[in-house]
Amino acid sequence: SRSEVLSVYTEVFGAIALAEYAKAAGDETVWQKAMAMYELLMPRLGRPSDTSLLGYPIHAEFHLHADDMCRITVAWVFNEIRPDPRFDDDLTLSVDSILKRHWKPELGALLENVAPDGSPMLDLPEGRMFHPGHAIESAWMLMEIARRRGDETLLQTAVEITLASLDHGWDREYGGLRYITNVDWTPTHSLEADLKLWWPHGETLYALLLAWDLTGRDDLAEWYEKVHDYTFSHFPDPEYGEWFGYLNRDGSRVWTAKANGWKGCFHLPRVLYRCYRLFGSTSASGS
Amino acid sequence: SRSEVLSVYTEVFGAIALAEYAKAAGDETVWQKAMAMYELLMPRLGRPSDTSLLGYPIHAEFHLHADDMCRITVAWVFNEIRPDPRFDDDLTLSVDSILKRHWKPELGALLENVAPDGSPMLDLPEGRMFHPGHAIESAWMLMEIARRRGDETLLQTAVEITLASLDHGWDREYGGLRYITNVDWTPTHSLEADLKLWWPHGETLYALLLAWDLTGRDDLAEWYEKVHDYTFSHFPDPEYGEWFGYLNRDGSRVWTAKANGWKGCFHLPRVLYRCYRLFGSTSASGS
Repeated sequence: SRSEVLSVYTEVFGAIALAEYAKAAGDETVWQKAMAMYELLMPRLGRPSDTSLLGYPIHAEFHLHADDMCRITVAWVFNEIRPDPRFDDDLTLSVDSILKRHWKPELGALLENVAPDGSPMLDLPEGRMFHPGHAIESAWMLMEIARRRGDETLLQTAVEITLASLDHGWDREYGGLRYITNVDWTPTHSLEADLKLWWPHGETLYALLLAWDLTGRDDLAEWYEKVHDYTFSHFPDPEYGEWFGYLNRDGSRVWTAKANGWKGCFHLPRVLYRCYRLFGSTSASGS
Repeated sequence: SRSEVLSVYTEVFGAIALAEYAKAAGDETVWQKAMAMYELLMPRLGRPSDTSLLGYPIHAEFHLHADDMCRITVAWVFNEIRPDPRFDDDLTLSVDSILKRHWKPELGALLENVAPDGSPMLDLPEGRMFHPGHAIESAWMLMEIARRRGDETLLQTAVEITLASLDHGWDREYGGLRYITNVDWTPTHSLEADLKLWWPHGETLYALLLAWDLTGRDDLAEWYEKVHDYTFSHFPDPEYGEWFGYLNRDGSRVWTAKANGWKGCFHLPRVLYRCYRLFGSTSASGS
């Protein structure tokens, strides 16, 4: 049925929205609903899973980086609202899985799909998949955890992930961050691989700003300027506001809708508000 | 499970491959297997179905033109090999559904998804979907049926569908046939809508050649030249042979693989062989 093809992201967005609303409204009943969704969601994340691609062999099992990213996204918000060792453990689980399973410093890549034990599966198209936007989105969450925990090693690794993803994923011919590549530049399975999407650019702006704020490194500031220029010259709609979502590789628009089944209000306000807070409240404000 | 997301096309290709092989090898056992697949496949086609998009409302039911196209593809091959009123009835069912449900001359469009009774559902993204390559692929099958049956009206309608699809779908800025549009040019749901794909171009070459052969119309010959020039300057691989499958809107390649889960050996040999036969054996050979 239709409901079976809906993605776990819907539940991720629902869980954090309920949690934030419970806090804003001071409503314990809503918090209970948020927790119920947390209980439903967490067991679905981190289990070996086949992907939605037409894979070879068709029933290969992968551990998905996307699951770690979902867990970190949800557990961070819940832990911010009501700190609890349980949420903190889910953050630790996410950090460990990303670093030990998916981040391959020798390849300069955070692999999107690996074997359940973290072994690369580079002989399969899914195993070669590099998703720069996902990698960078996880990286800034790792930076926030590193900042909270005072974990300098984690911070440095998160910066490395960000820079490796930009080095690999930036389109040197047309500008902008590629949506999906294979780590070895073999052909991807995704028809839309070469498009430029709004959300990886937004997530990258915040990752670079946070990384620069925490390290002061010039190379991060330079990347920020470059991504900023591409992003703000291509995505915002000067006439009606909001951002266009999907550009062809050459930067022309695939279409002009501000929302669809995937583009909702999740990424953009989140990262712009975080950027805004960062400009106003941290060491960056002094420079 | 994975098997539930596999498309009906796999079974379409399997059924006609088994049928053709049974004929080539004179193997009755294989023919029985082909018939078993026919029995499995036909009941799945033509029933109201939700689509694989994230639709609004999420459980809207559509009749899919793709189902008619699949039925016509399979029934034509089976009927060629062992003519039977049953197969001929399935062809008639397909023709009627395409003409009465999906072809909307007042819109100049063959709608990909309509209500089960054929009403347009233009208030839904799926209902606005126009798939020029699918429309043209069906059109040449209608022409072959029209030729066989001596049905001049059906032939003219099939030519109209072809020309309407080209008028709407041809990319006047970059050349090539768009993959997916909405009939009213509202934003589509498909991220890959603006790509240029190998198979719609192949199917269009044969449709135009057949239409020109059957009518001698100059406008069809002119379209053929235009599509021919784009196709052969963009898709064939001069170094290793075969065709590239997927181009960005601007004609640059998304990737260079010759096959993936969707690009197999179905479309290309089929249409090139049909073009070859047409050049060698019909009225066109005299001109």
